[in-house]
Amino acid sequence: MLEELKQAVYKANMELPKKNLVKYTWGNVSGIDRNKGLFVIKPSGIDYSLLKPEDLVVVDLEGNQVEGKYCPSSDTATHLELYKAFSKIGAIVHTHSLWATIWAQAGRSIPCYGTTQADCFYGEIPCTRELTAEEIEKNYEKNTGLVIVETFRKKNPLYLPGVLCISHGPFAWGKDPAEAVYNSVVIEQCAKMAYHTEALNHNIIQINQILLDKHFLRKHGENAYYGQI
Amino acid sequence: MLEELKQAVYKANMELPKKNLVKYTWGNVSGIDRNKGLFVIKPSGIDYSLLKPEDLVVVDLEGNQVEGKYCPSSDTATHLELYKAFSKIGAIVHTHSLWATIWAQAGRSIPCYGTTQADCFYGEIPCTRELTAEEIEKNYEKNTGLVIVETFRKKNPLYLPGVLCISHGPFAWGKDPAEAVYNSVVIEQCAKMAYHTEALNHNIIQINQILLDKHFLRKHGENAYYGQI
Amino acid sequence: MLEELKQAVYKANMELPKKNLVKYTWGNVSGIDRNKGLFVIKPSGIDYSLLKPEDLVVVDLEGNQVEGKYCPSSDTATHLELYKAFSKIGAIVHTHSLWATIWAQAGRSIPCYGTTQADCFYGEIPCTRELTAEEIEKNYEKNTGLVIVETFRKKNPLYLPGVLCISHGPFAWGKDPAEAVYNSVVIEQCAKMAYHTEALNHNIIQINQILLDKHFLRKHGENAYYGQI
Amino acid sequence: MLEELKQAVYKANMELPKKNLVKYTWGNVSGIDRNKGLFVIKPSGIDYSLLKPEDLVVVDLEGNQVEGKYCPSSDTATHLELYKAFSKIGAIVHTHSLWATIWAQAGRSIPCYGTTQADCFYGEIPCTRELTAEEIEKNYEKNTGLVIVETFRKKNPLYLPGVLCISHGPFAWGKDPAEAVYNSVVIEQCAKMAYHTEALNHNIIQINQILLDKHFLRKHGENAYYGQI
Repeated sequence: MLEELKQAVYKANMELPKKNLVKYTWGNVSGIDRNKGLFVIKPSGIDYSLLKPEDLVVVDLEGNQVEGKYCPSSDTATHLELYKAFSKIGAIVHTHSLWATIWAQAGRSIPCYGTTQADCFYGEIPCTRELTAEEIEKNYEKNTGLVIVETFRKKNPLYLPGVLCISHGPFAWGKDPAEAVYNSVVIEQCAKMAYHTEALNHNIIQINQILLDKHFLRKHGENAYYGQI
Repeated sequence: MLEELKQAVYKANMELPKKNLVKYTWGNVSGIDRNKGLFVIKPSGIDYSLLKPEDLVVVDLEGNQVEGKYCPSSDTATHLELYKAFSKIGAIVHTHSLWATIWAQAGRSIPCYGTTQADCFYGEIPCTRELTAEEIEKNYEKNTGLVIVETFRKKNPLYLPGVLCISHGPFAWGKDPAEAVYNSVVIEQCAKMAYHTEALNHNIIQINQILLDKHFLRKHGENAYYGQI
Repeated sequence: MLEELKQAVYKANMELPKKNLVKYTWGNVSGIDRNKGLFVIKPSGIDYSLLKPEDLVVVDLEGNQVEGKYCPSSDTATHLELYKAFSKIGAIVHTHSLWATIWAQAGRSIPCYGTTQADCFYGEIPCTRELTAEEIEKNYEKNTGLVIVETFRKKNPLYLPGVLCISHGPFAWGKDPAEAVYNSVVIEQCAKMAYHTEALNHNIIQINQILLDKHFLRKHGENAYYGQI
Repeated sequence: MLEELKQAVYKANMELPKKNLVKYTWGNVSGIDRNKGLFVIKPSGIDYSLLKPEDLVVVDLEGNQVEGKYCPSSDTATHLELYKAFSKIGAIVHTHSLWATIWAQAGRSIPCYGTTQADCFYGEIPCTRELTAEEIEKNYEKNTGLVIVETFRKKNPLYLPGVLCISHGPFAWGKDPAEAVYNSVVIEQCAKMAYHTEALNHNIIQINQILLDKHFLRKHGENAYYGQI
């Protein structure tokens, strides 16, 4: 079932080591079929070099495993909450990519210091609050999803397609698995740039709103003119 | 038309990911035929892995598309202004290369701290001023070109073959596409070195004028003696 | 003798340059057969590109060379002390990997700032004390082992499978050579992340105990639920 | 003539881009035949990808070109002074490798913070003084060699097989071209480690003399016991 989606999720998973976003099994990609209400996700702890499309696990929106011989990613409950809350996203990527994880560990949102970030994110990439002891001890992975959703209560997940989970690492999403990987690469590159931008200019402030509008909206929104229309 | 120039521009575009100067489509190269008054430029938003020489777009110096099935780079109007103002340059490269972009985001010119930079740039690599709201909102890409030209009002673009656009990233140029890529690599390497040189010695000052003269002029100018003459 | 173990130790040695943990001969892996009381270790100063399984040296727990045409690693006496003191470990890796060595040179334990470290290390990765002049001058390599053992007097080497030797570099271990290499990669990555996390947030404190418990214990211990059970 | 030496010098030159020590033509290797009083050096400005053994240039110790269709490296006069002053070295490498050049640009010697450096350098890697205006303006490359020699007036070039030329970059040497490249790699790695060690511990002091003795002398000198004897 969902063979086409499995191919896309498989291909996106395999992009993670190629783009230098994961080591070993430290990441996962899922993609959803909104019509069927099912999503496809990487199995837990399987090395990328051994992963095959048929190893992917199918899960429904109640969290039941519908297909697959392996257990799904231990982060499945997080993906599930994001799919439920962000109704327009089609895929999710989680990694421990180096620079995004550094910002997550520092507990800081990534300010928008330039057009590289503005081309893809409409402002700073937010960092979640810490989970409470109760949220960690019971249903940790589900609560990780809920705290991301809480972070976006007043934000548009299509305009800010990613987040940092404090002390942990980034999640990103997109309309499909390929775009979610793309957004993961953008977060990683912008995290690295922002770190060094601050070190080079201690008084740096975020990009001005007009330049942010210009860059984000020339690629996104109805008057976009970047690329082949 | 312009088949030889297209090959050179194509080859230079393909060098950008090889030299680790771009991810995805975050860069572009153009080259000009001064006799015909036409330049060849990368199409907008086409991935490097898919780019073919025949995909390149030909544009005249009024900005009219003369040939090509794709829209030209969204930065075409910037290239155009540079070709008009800097009459001796033959090619232009724009990237979001990591370290050059960090300096651009920090809003700082790159000081000349050593002979690696002095071999290619006759002093510091300048950073533009910020654009005004009006300059961003209308004809943004053209105004990006004009603010670069303004930055070089008292500088020789052949002696300083590159610039940082504030909050954005570097542009470099040269007599041909290969040299413009070379200069982009020099900017990136010198940006990385200068960042860490300052961190290692907070009292560092720029290279002295005599050593700058020695290194720049042994490779450039009429008494050059580096390489095979 | 010990052909299977030699293959595993050989393969783990060859992983070190692939994982970018060593340059030239700056590292070594050993593995032990607890039943026979013998361990297999890399010969001293042999380049990885030339190493063959049959070049590995077999040593007993009194430090006598039992097999092999080459001298064993100059760090053999260190490995020996670790095997004697940590009765449940099956393999040891020593490298001068970049970021772990930076922490070792700075004389600092690596604090646990996130779940990447917590997934594998139950807290901070300790740094040894300095050796005394006497400990350096006589039986230096043996004393290096003894000071590691001293560092773990109140720690569980299975819960903290690695250490930094001050002014020197990391040692890591595991149930087998592959796991010891894995733990070396984790130390290197966490060392790099922790360095930059501190620079990004000068007030950062270690991960809270509840989150540390959650991540370490979902992968280790009897209630683990990560991976395929 | 000198075919064997040319092969060794060629091979060492080709190692420079492989070891990530040079971009484009920013480096050169030479090797000397002490009996004949001739050395072999890379031609000036020839790209590594195009270099062939027969392109190498033979120069005598008065600086006369004895063989070769190309001009020798613009740094030939520097190599010449080092061969004349350091009678036991057999090869020289010059690069603009990233981290060594950062220290050179910062005008600082690289302190010895750990055993990676101590295994190869008997203490800190020195940085030269600045050249005077006169030394730069006339016979710059020769004076670069002379100021290196001056830096080693009270140092043993066999115990410290490399130097940083202020505002410029590193030179390294060894008994043969392969060892000179090896020492260049050590300088680069130690430069990177030392930079970050200082940032991580502002109070760090150099490795103690006893540990320095232990590591340097177990690999060098008459009581060495590292490797296969």
